[in-house]
Amino acid sequence: MLTLFELSGARPEIRFSPYVWRIKMMLEHKGLDYDTKTVTFTNKSALEGSGLNRVPVIKYGEKWVSESLDIARYLDATFPEKPLFESPLAAEQAVILNNWMDQNILMPVFMMIVADIHDTLDAESQVYFRETREPRIGCTIESTRSARDERRESFKASLAPIEAILANHDYLSGSVPAFADHCLMGPVMFAHIPSSFDPFAGSIPIQAWRERMFDQYGSFARKAPRAV
Amino acid sequence: MLTLFELSGARPEIRFSPYVWRIKMMLEHKGLDYDTKTVTFTNKSALEGSGLNRVPVIKYGEKWVSESLDIARYLDATFPEKPLFESPLAAEQAVILNNWMDQNILMPVFMMIVADIHDTLDAESQVYFRETREPRIGCTIESTRSARDERRESFKASLAPIEAILANHDYLSGSVPAFADHCLMGPVMFAHIPSSFDPFAGSIPIQAWRERMFDQYGSFARKAPRAV
Repeated sequence: MLTLFELSGARPEIRFSPYVWRIKMMLEHKGLDYDTKTVTFTNKSALEGSGLNRVPVIKYGEKWVSESLDIARYLDATFPEKPLFESPLAAEQAVILNNWMDQNILMPVFMMIVADIHDTLDAESQVYFRETREPRIGCTIESTRSARDERRESFKASLAPIEAILANHDYLSGSVPAFADHCLMGPVMFAHIPSSFDPFAGSIPIQAWRERMFDQYGSFARKAPRAV
Repeated sequence: MLTLFELSGARPEIRFSPYVWRIKMMLEHKGLDYDTKTVTFTNKSALEGSGLNRVPVIKYGEKWVSESLDIARYLDATFPEKPLFESPLAAEQAVILNNWMDQNILMPVFMMIVADIHDTLDAESQVYFRETREPRIGCTIESTRSARDERRESFKASLAPIEAILANHDYLSGSVPAFADHCLMGPVMFAHIPSSFDPFAGSIPIQAWRERMFDQYGSFARKAPRAV
């Protein structure tokens, strides 16, 4: 059996990690059976013995794998059916795609919904989250709320490359979803699970794509428990 | 005959535009015959009648094409031999690769060599360049010189995704160069032509890749006239 280790809020069914969501979509894409175990920011006992402490982590037999790109490649190597990458080269170049998504989509989304993430956490994780995140964002978590409409407005420009692809294709990976789509679903679910604020409200093509992704894999993402 | 319109410095053989270099490498990759015409920042008379004013521009028969990604796709559609993209999907996703390169490689390189670019220009272009670029960079062109060692140091982190690919492949596109390599050659030549400062001095894998790219297509890039 394959086990996926993921991050949860105070309620264990609230699972918002964008990096984990990428892997969840990949596991669903491949139709693999797996169970999940949760950690929180301050309690990672489920990972004991792995030497790892940042999710996503998967364990298959005695093999532990971490880092989303390494996991993606491991999944394609171990379960070659329904590939995540169209070619070995696409698997290599994914490092750039992934990096672009983190810089241009994930970071701006984080700035818009960080206060909602905070609210889903248990009390101990909230302390840790505030101590580690506020220095990075350069303001209090709460003060991000008043800036998010404006952030969403300027975020529109970052979406242009994605919209350019969706102008010609149903999915970023063409006619069926694959790695690029799973990658974008990370920040999408990172907002969708904890927040009622939609960072993608300004983009009709991305909203339509999101609906298609919500429908995939037995409506897996659509059925995920939300905090709101 | 195909004509490529490109930007030059005061000396017409000094051609540094990173966007044009991408197209030059693509034309060489395909082994196409073409001639070139130059414009400067302030004299674009060669483009008269095209309705276009930003290079690269190509003209083939009566057809004008601008924007490097559109030109790349046009070249593959019109001259299918020696494709630039491994698949139609790769051609679509190239918008993200291109955007990543512009943000993470081209912009930092620009900040390191902008003063050398300025020095290659004719007097009228220098006035235009200063008026348009200084507001963007937030300081005088000259003051960038003292900051460039430090910039190169922090630039190293941006190169990690490229180095990850080159750890397993001779080229970003695998065993032979293609779009991703041509794309990176834009900022590489943007520094190489006008400047003796090497933004890539901190990366042995990228320097080795650059040597391989310099050797390609009859040492085309290696033979290009430099201002230094």
